[in-house]
Amino acid sequence: MSVETRHVLGERSFDRSVIRWIMKSVGNPRISVRLWNGDEFRVTEARPVACMEFRSRRAVFELLRSPSVGFGECYSRGLIDIHGDFLAFANEITAAIAEHRDNSYNASKLRSLLHAMRRNSLQRSRHNVHHHYDLGNDFYKLWLDERMVYTCAYYDTPAATLDEAQVAKLDHVCRKLQLQPGQKVIEAGCGWGALALHMAEHYGVNVTAYNNSREQVAYARERATARKLDDRVTFVEDDYRMIDARCDAFVSVGMLEHVGLANFRSLGALIKRVLKPDGFGLVHSIGRSFPNRTDSWITKHIFPGGHIPSLSEMMSVFEPQKFSVLDVENLRPHYARTCATWLQNFEAEADKVAEMYDEEFVRMWRLYLAGSSAGFESGTLQLYQVVFTPRGNNDVPWTRHYQYPGFAEAR
Amino acid sequence: MSVETRHVLGERSFDRSVIRWIMKSVGNPRISVRLWNGDEFRVTEARPVACMEFRSRRAVFELLRSPSVGFGECYSRGLIDIHGDFLAFANEITAAIAEHRDNSYNASKLRSLLHAMRRNSLQRSRHNVHHHYDLGNDFYKLWLDERMVYTCAYYDTPAATLDEAQVAKLDHVCRKLQLQPGQKVIEAGCGWGALALHMAEHYGVNVTAYNNSREQVAYARERATARKLDDRVTFVEDDYRMIDARCDAFVSVGMLEHVGLANFRSLGALIKRVLKPDGFGLVHSIGRSFPNRTDSWITKHIFPGGHIPSLSEMMSVFEPQKFSVLDVENLRPHYARTCATWLQNFEAEADKVAEMYDEEFVRMWRLYLAGSSAGFESGTLQLYQVVFTPRGNNDVPWTRHYQYPGFAEAR
Repeated sequence: MSVETRHVLGERSFDRSVIRWIMKSVGNPRISVRLWNGDEFRVTEARPVACMEFRSRRAVFELLRSPSVGFGECYSRGLIDIHGDFLAFANEITAAIAEHRDNSYNASKLRSLLHAMRRNSLQRSRHNVHHHYDLGNDFYKLWLDERMVYTCAYYDTPAATLDEAQVAKLDHVCRKLQLQPGQKVIEAGCGWGALALHMAEHYGVNVTAYNNSREQVAYARERATARKLDDRVTFVEDDYRMIDARCDAFVSVGMLEHVGLANFRSLGALIKRVLKPDGFGLVHSIGRSFPNRTDSWITKHIFPGGHIPSLSEMMSVFEPQKFSVLDVENLRPHYARTCATWLQNFEAEADKVAEMYDEEFVRMWRLYLAGSSAGFESGTLQLYQVVFTPRGNNDVPWTRHYQYPGFAEAR
Repeated sequence: MSVETRHVLGERSFDRSVIRWIMKSVGNPRISVRLWNGDEFRVTEARPVACMEFRSRRAVFELLRSPSVGFGECYSRGLIDIHGDFLAFANEITAAIAEHRDNSYNASKLRSLLHAMRRNSLQRSRHNVHHHYDLGNDFYKLWLDERMVYTCAYYDTPAATLDEAQVAKLDHVCRKLQLQPGQKVIEAGCGWGALALHMAEHYGVNVTAYNNSREQVAYARERATARKLDDRVTFVEDDYRMIDARCDAFVSVGMLEHVGLANFRSLGALIKRVLKPDGFGLVHSIGRSFPNRTDSWITKHIFPGGHIPSLSEMMSVFEPQKFSVLDVENLRPHYARTCATWLQNFEAEADKVAEMYDEEFVRMWRLYLAGSSAGFESGTLQLYQVVFTPRGNNDVPWTRHYQYPGFAEAR
């Protein structure tokens, strides 16, 4: 054996050792690894669900530097490739990490608090929202449902399509708010306006809906005009902190994730100020089963300024204002399915997306959608709908039959 | 006017001023006040709902010393009397205090933490439980429902009687736990065994139920034998901390209030240890809309060692163990009605109770039952049912239809 050959073997065996060490640190997922020279090996004895290809040694260093940001950036740039079903791969890795990393609760909580100390100023929030939501309506149209609802759907029957499940979600939210014709509703963070328009059209309420994203608001206003709802729905292109009206119902679907923990209490104070004493509120947000910081690749590339709260953290919206929390529902499996469907739709249009942006963008979004689905599938992420009312309100339903049409209200 | 007359008038006017000051500090309730000399005056212009009689000046001093303990002890001993409907009086005072005392959230939270630092040792817990629950089964039989369920009922129809509403509660809990025949269930804090027996009889499960109260356990065992359920239900006279089995379902109804905040985390660790990875748990507890210490008269005379948690405080049972909270339901109005019905039943048997104990005991329990009903009516107290499962469990229902019989499960 020549000196050169031994040197090469030594190198390869060193690479393998480092990769095995990385894989151990994420719980030894059932995947195989392929190196830039074609060498392939399994991480565990179990049959691999997918193959992860390191296309250059640099990817190993990037993973060592930061498993989350490193993997995300290497995959996006093509330094790492995944062979096999991408969602299955994401599910496998996420589940392995969730099972393996039995983080100490106190350490996680501390990380969450440190993460949460970054405040989102008005200007910063506009920038953060712009980063994600002003990518262009045409892009989101490619893979969202027809109403462009970019939050967790509600599959109330197993056969429901994404379109049906999004309508079911809108109705589920409206029923939970017990909307009555003529009521005034404030929506904070209204996306492309689907919920606001649905509430006005099907529940006869007047809606003022806030959103920082110029593109989304422009689109929502067009829709309101086309559906002749512009006398009942007002879309305001502004931060939720500018709300100054009074309302019978306050609703926010998929905004709390962007608010940042440091602003939860002032969000609660704002709701307290605007909600009538007999009004109802609903906050729908991605959550966690315990406090932790948000994934660093996600905060760097997808949602700057975001924080995914645990239920106890969410309570800092409600408890300082002495709101009475009436109902919390966890829709975790629904969001896993929603994201998986978005991913499917996205993949079908990946060529178009690559034309609109580039291949790196496609890979980044593939990772984001698959990773989100996997986060909900593994229980790393949860989805909470919280219904609340001012504490003194005794005009509350006795049972939850009102949420399930067909049931007579039991009051 | 003689010097003596002026002196007497001055005294009376001083008493009135002090009482007005006390009444202002509890939010100026709509009551009238009668003094030991027959003088009567209103606290506000509004028509009084009841009359509070100070039968001696000492009662004024006791109220000054401590509004809660002072009032409770003076009323119990007959130094203060209430003329008119006692529950209406309790509701009025409690609502006035709830509206008036806009305690700073941080101060309340601090009080809650200080209160919570007292730990309940095993011995202390046995003593505390004995204090309340070993008063004698005959006493509780006088005013509870036929199954002796001493927790919040569930009035799923407006016309339900207390008996019906307690059965509805037992079924609501069983459905939330998705019990299947042959499963093993652990119950922590089982009272007189009604839920354990109901689960075994109607859902075909095997139950091990823990309780520190000798009298309650003896009664529960008798019932199990009489209903031929003793092969399926085991009642253990021991602290919940002694549980060492594994189970498909863990349930605790009305125990968390006695556990003390300092022990929440170890309760969660115990549940984590005993609950199978695909198991479900339910904790049913009195709660608050924000952290605060428990009423001092209640902790002195009724429930030593107790702590009524807010939802964020309750999460310290679940979050450190990374449980996935699936569902929180607030049954506050149900407990106001339950306590009001208990009070009605109790008043109908007050003479018997006075014979068994004495008049002071009757007055103490009247105050406790009316005060509890008023606490729920005003929103000072809440009632949370929390359903949870280990985070990784993906075999969770997609909707809550399973909780409402007649609905097809949508999985």
